[in-house]
Amino acid sequence: MKAIISVPLPQAAYDIVVAPAGLDHLGAWLAAAEPPLLKSGQKVLVVSNPTVFRHYGQRVLDSLQQAGYRVSHCVLPAGERYKTLRSVQKIYDAALAHRLERGSAMVALGGGVIGDMTGFAAATWLRGIAVVQVPTSLLAMVDAAIGGKTGVNHPQGKNLIGAFHQPRLVVIDPEVLKTLPAREFRAAMAEIIKYGVIWDGELFEGLEAAQRLDQVRYLPPELLQLILQRSCQAKADVVAQDEKEAGLRAILNYGHTIGHAIESLMQYRGINHGEAVAIGMVAAAAIATQLGWWDQAEADRQHQLLVKAALPTQIPAGLASDDIVALLSTDKKVQDGRVRFVLPKGIGQADTTDAVSEPLIRSVLAAMAA
Amino acid sequence: MKAIISVPLPQAAYDIVVAPAGLDHLGAWLAAAEPPLLKSGQKVLVVSNPTVFRHYGQRVLDSLQQAGYRVSHCVLPAGERYKTLRSVQKIYDAALAHRLERGSAMVALGGGVIGDMTGFAAATWLRGIAVVQVPTSLLAMVDAAIGGKTGVNHPQGKNLIGAFHQPRLVVIDPEVLKTLPAREFRAAMAEIIKYGVIWDGELFEGLEAAQRLDQVRYLPPELLQLILQRSCQAKADVVAQDEKEAGLRAILNYGHTIGHAIESLMQYRGINHGEAVAIGMVAAAAIATQLGWWDQAEADRQHQLLVKAALPTQIPAGLASDDIVALLSTDKKVQDGRVRFVLPKGIGQADTTDAVSEPLIRSVLAAMAA
Ligand SMILES: NC(=O)c1ccc[n+]([C@@H]2O[C@H](COP(=O)([O-])OP(=O)(O)OC[C@H]3O[C@@H](n4cnc5c(N)ncnc54)[C@H](O)[C@@H]3O)[C@@H](O)[C@H]2O)c1
Ligand SMILES: NC(=O)c1ccc[n+]([C@@H]2O[C@H](COP(=O)([O-])OP(=O)(O)OC[C@H]3O[C@@H](n4cnc5c(N)ncnc54)[C@H](O)[C@@H]3O)[C@@H](O)[C@H]2O)c1
Ligand SMILES: [Zn+2]
Ligand SMILES: [Zn+2]
Repeated sequence: MKAIISVPLPQAAYDIVVAPAGLDHLGAWLAAAEPPLLKSGQKVLVVSNPTVFRHYGQRVLDSLQQAGYRVSHCVLPAGERYKTLRSVQKIYDAALAHRLERGSAMVALGGGVIGDMTGFAAATWLRGIAVVQVPTSLLAMVDAAIGGKTGVNHPQGKNLIGAFHQPRLVVIDPEVLKTLPAREFRAAMAEIIKYGVIWDGELFEGLEAAQRLDQVRYLPPELLQLILQRSCQAKADVVAQDEKEAGLRAILNYGHTIGHAIESLMQYRGINHGEAVAIGMVAAAAIATQLGWWDQAEADRQHQLLVKAALPTQIPAGLASDDIVALLSTDKKVQDGRVRFVLPKGIGQADTTDAVSEPLIRSVLAAMAA
Repeated sequence: MKAIISVPLPQAAYDIVVAPAGLDHLGAWLAAAEPPLLKSGQKVLVVSNPTVFRHYGQRVLDSLQQAGYRVSHCVLPAGERYKTLRSVQKIYDAALAHRLERGSAMVALGGGVIGDMTGFAAATWLRGIAVVQVPTSLLAMVDAAIGGKTGVNHPQGKNLIGAFHQPRLVVIDPEVLKTLPAREFRAAMAEIIKYGVIWDGELFEGLEAAQRLDQVRYLPPELLQLILQRSCQAKADVVAQDEKEAGLRAILNYGHTIGHAIESLMQYRGINHGEAVAIGMVAAAAIATQLGWWDQAEADRQHQLLVKAALPTQIPAGLASDDIVALLSTDKKVQDGRVRFVLPKGIGQADTTDAVSEPLIRSVLAAMAA
């Protein structure tokens, strides 16, 4: 079971490899490509966090060493609040200590936090060296590692500092998901269901075929492999058609308009991104059915998938619809005072609109109160 | 006297405008282009240092305001040792305070230090917003502001952190040079003479026509204008043919191989970059004549230009040739153990070679001792 998804970007095409035990092949894959993706003898800096490094660091180091690379590593504290320029500075220090050169590479081994920071460090070290993404969280596998967005947070805002920098290779080893906390797994499942709704009806049906979607151990390896492949393909398709976020890429924000407002109002506590997106998807689906864009029956099927992934589908207790609506209008996605929504038009199809009235948003949110 | 030099980059073509009183037209030029280079009503953050801002800040702010932009500014301490991530962080803070958006711009008003930092901040704010370069030092005008290299220093090495980010417009106002310290002026003259030698024989002859090259006030405005235009054109030509430093751009390192070694051995004290490059050009010229690449008569003409610019042409007292040679072999430009040199083949023509023997370098340096 090894699948390769190509991301055909004009300047920087690259492959996403989805393969069990992929960690152990990373070095060989980099070296064996023709021409090699990274020259033999080159220096490689592996960046990770303590949890992930403890589980998988040695295997990645070994794999790279056996392929003839000169390897060192840098372990940063875990967590979103360490996604800062300060952590990136530690990567720079390691790059200097290890004397990385133009032809060297960084390897990001971890979730989206490590992936975003390592990508940014690689984008800016010597004005850009190669980065290889080895995502270990489900979210990083199907979202953060693909598409070349890299960056860190500013103390006053998420992802304000960053660069586009495409990886040279993405290696996804589904087996590492067994150590991922279940709540992280479920959160990412929201984004996967999102891809099914906005882009890939077959992925949606694949998810419907699963018994449970709330923990990785309930997914047969073949189904997990399929879900990963199709999710990566969905993100890759969208990115390839809109590398720098000029238009189409906006549909990836399905569920995110209201999702962001909820996360933000809850000050990112007690709820995670995927959970907020799940709620946002329920809201967007209701808006879409009200507007006649979407069948109620299909919206119900989305709802069932979210429930099967044990994701929330109601507005958390204590959150006022009015506050959500108020925040929406100060959101980045506002165009000329109207909120921009991504809405489904069928399973595997979505579009953006700014024709959603405030009363409609209010009534939909009111109906979703816990 | 207004000249426009186009830099025809496939993804990001832009113009360099060389015009007396250009500072006062900056806003109008941004707004009047069709389509405008920056939409009316957009936010602009002007970044400068105290000296430059005191002289020219208000004029630039006025010009932008009159063109309908919403302007704020950020003044950073002057000097190479403030070319750090820390200063860039101050630009980010100002960008946040002023709520810069995707469609906003930063304007770099200053020498190469401000230009490099502002360019880097713009490259990485919201993953890249527009930057306009308004270079005020001669070096920034003919070198740093053109070509899209941006970045900051790491405590242990120059320009290690950076990104390629082309400006949207470069505005050069020759009149600001009247306040530039003479030593800064002369240092940049080394790079200008360099362009004459490696790229543009007519520029070289233009420089020969000048009475003096050591202070701006001795240059007639027409000649200064010509020198600026042709120097920018030279840099633009080379950059356009090799945007990401794959090959040709290496010839810009003429004089820099030995120049860098000298700067570095002197720990960047008592000598500036341009002075070191001047010495490096004398050394490279001697190597080229010894190898039969270059006429002695032409090398002498280069020597005279350097003298006319009051630039040093001898190895500073106290520097041992052996130390220079030893440092060269640890330099970035080393390929497979041999030092890479750029050598002239005629006036306006140069090429790279790694066929320079160590004994030859030694004998040339010995002959140049002060
Ligand atoms: N660049 C993009 O396009 C993009 C897209 C989406 C999200 N992101 C970013 O990604 C980040 C979120 O990513 P995330 O959800 O992966 O968060 P994360 O990187 O913090 O990982 C979540 C947690 O899981 C742990 N973990 C990861 N893999 C593990 C494994 N195999 N076994 C055990 N523990 C494991 C991590 O240590 C961490 O504690 C955010 O900063 C977000 O902004 C970026
Ligand atoms: N990006 C590139 O391609 C590139 C190329 C060459 C050099 N550089 C960088 O540029 C920097 C050097 O540039 P620089 O020589 O302009 O140094 P600088 O920016 O430090 O300016 C030199 C001095 O002149 C002052 N100054 C500038 N303009 C003035 C004016 N009109 N009137 C009065 N004072 C003025 C500055 O305040 C400063 O003290 C270095 O950091 C170097 O790495 C970058
Ligand atoms: Zn998301
Ligand atoms: Zn130089």
